[in-house]
Amino acid sequence: MKLGSLKEGGRDGTLIVVNRDLTRGVRATTVAPTLQKALEDWSSIAPRLRALAEQLEDDKAVGSFELDTTALAAPLPRAYQWADGSAYVVHVELVRKARGVEMPPSFWTDPLMYQGGSDSFIGPNDEIEMADEAWGIDFEGEIGVMVDDVPMGISPQAARKHIKLVTILNDVSLRNVIVGELAKGFGFFHGKPATAFAPVAVTPDELGDDWNGARLDRPLISTLNGKEFGHPNAATDLTFDFGQLIAHAARTRHLEAGTIVGSGTVANRDPAVGCSCIAERRVRETLEGGKPLTPFMSFGDHIRIEMFNRAGKSIFGAIDQKVVRYTPPA
Amino acid sequence: MKLGSLKEGGRDGTLIVVNRDLTRGVRATTVAPTLQKALEDWSSIAPRLRALAEQLEDDKAVGSFELDTTALAAPLPRAYQWADGSAYVVHVELVRKARGVEMPPSFWTDPLMYQGGSDSFIGPNDEIEMADEAWGIDFEGEIGVMVDDVPMGISPQAARKHIKLVTILNDVSLRNVIVGELAKGFGFFHGKPATAFAPVAVTPDELGDDWNGARLDRPLISTLNGKEFGHPNAATDLTFDFGQLIAHAARTRHLEAGTIVGSGTVANRDPAVGCSCIAERRVRETLEGGKPLTPFMSFGDHIRIEMFNRAGKSIFGAIDQKVVRYTPPA
Repeated sequence: MKLGSLKEGGRDGTLIVVNRDLTRGVRATTVAPTLQKALEDWSSIAPRLRALAEQLEDDKAVGSFELDTTALAAPLPRAYQWADGSAYVVHVELVRKARGVEMPPSFWTDPLMYQGGSDSFIGPNDEIEMADEAWGIDFEGEIGVMVDDVPMGISPQAARKHIKLVTILNDVSLRNVIVGELAKGFGFFHGKPATAFAPVAVTPDELGDDWNGARLDRPLISTLNGKEFGHPNAATDLTFDFGQLIAHAARTRHLEAGTIVGSGTVANRDPAVGCSCIAERRVRETLEGGKPLTPFMSFGDHIRIEMFNRAGKSIFGAIDQKVVRYTPPA
Repeated sequence: MKLGSLKEGGRDGTLIVVNRDLTRGVRATTVAPTLQKALEDWSSIAPRLRALAEQLEDDKAVGSFELDTTALAAPLPRAYQWADGSAYVVHVELVRKARGVEMPPSFWTDPLMYQGGSDSFIGPNDEIEMADEAWGIDFEGEIGVMVDDVPMGISPQAARKHIKLVTILNDVSLRNVIVGELAKGFGFFHGKPATAFAPVAVTPDELGDDWNGARLDRPLISTLNGKEFGHPNAATDLTFDFGQLIAHAARTRHLEAGTIVGSGTVANRDPAVGCSCIAERRVRETLEGGKPLTPFMSFGDHIRIEMFNRAGKSIFGAIDQKVVRYTPPA
């Protein structure tokens, strides 16, 4: 089944069940008011949401409506945790190579992960508001999973069964801010503003054979200002799968239901497939020609991120955002 | 007024109003079910909580009960954001000196801040469960503030008015894990397990003249295994006040109501006042005698962190925790 949130009913939105074609929805309020609440009690709530999803597919759901996915909030409009990995180590290796810095071999065995801000995500079609173009505004196309309660110290294999939903996201990044920020030694803060999510999150069974329990075997399509930017496959060159990433996140603490774990920018070694962020293309340009050619995003630029199933249908709906100027309060 | 949360009614606990002496409480459920909900609509809810607090002081609150502060949850048992600064730069300078590394001068003007995990805080008397003593288990006594909605790009002066509650906390840290983690470049993750909070958070007016709108002018007392470890004053040597820290956190994004902003380990230049974490004492020992003498915490060790007003009464109640061994699931 596919789940999303309407921008109504408060800060956490209103949970809806969405049909496979993303054309119709139905409020799930009789089952659970919000997606967060559903994840907190998933084993008892999921079967009832699934029954509603079946009614919706059969056009028998009372109160169903024609859906405009562009008007949706992020499936979790805010979350208690957003833990983002960097699981395509080939991407990290490229970045290091362009900077002339050796990558520690441990990066192939010990996942990189940062604690992201989760208090106010933005919807799939919300504008990316930024005060300054000079910050180096970039998108990052990623896969994310939402889990129920995960105990501290869980194994990667056991962690897999806690994956309840899968989605895609745009981990908006400010490249020129990140450089100075990481040099300070405390990780990302300003460089990672509000993250955007696809209209819906889906249960793993919706992904069929393209989901092996811990990774998603489909290309992620990024389109910048109407032109394809990349279509790397999310299973290719994935160094750490979601079982490993969740176990990593839970090494020294329990993870609360509703935690979102991210893959990091989807990247493949093959340059022919393109990139899921501008930074990687600039790195490739630097390695080829000595300097980056593609600029970061300007006010007015559009980024679209989407994934299709084997039949060519959009799985999660599209992230489609415009960068706009933000004016801070006086 | 003083606010806390009972460990009942679900994951966010049940909001209670607590009297000044921390001896009696009353459920605030008719006003707001949880502290998170109160912060989301503070301007309309705070006056009603205040009326209840006055009734409680006058012994006229219906349903009031004798309070055991040791049984409380953290005031916010979980939060959408935990942004922790390192505002006592004298502490950072000491750490660097012991490592023989120069501190960038920008550290005096540009706050250090990391994104903390906020999905499952622990209560003031909850055990600190850790799988391995070798991780270098340490406490960090800090001041924290809780804000309502803060717009992106706010000024430090305007940020002050968003401070709704003040508390103290124990930012549990794993020193031997942090070394390797920070070297990876993405900041803290494993090194910062679940944070513990005092029994109550208080409105700034409870602090009287000891609160200047952005800093708290009282000593923070840390007691390790029954012996005083330090009593640095939280206003002395504070390089960035809470107005500046909130503005820093909001530079590239809005902060959702219920965000907690921390000061970092309270530290003073004067060695006579002691320390609010073991790491700092070890640094001072290294600078004096060439090597650290005080070990990090072992299973069975107790840490108590508390702050008293000028009349000698506990303001927030005590954080009083024991470190115990955690056994991961099979």
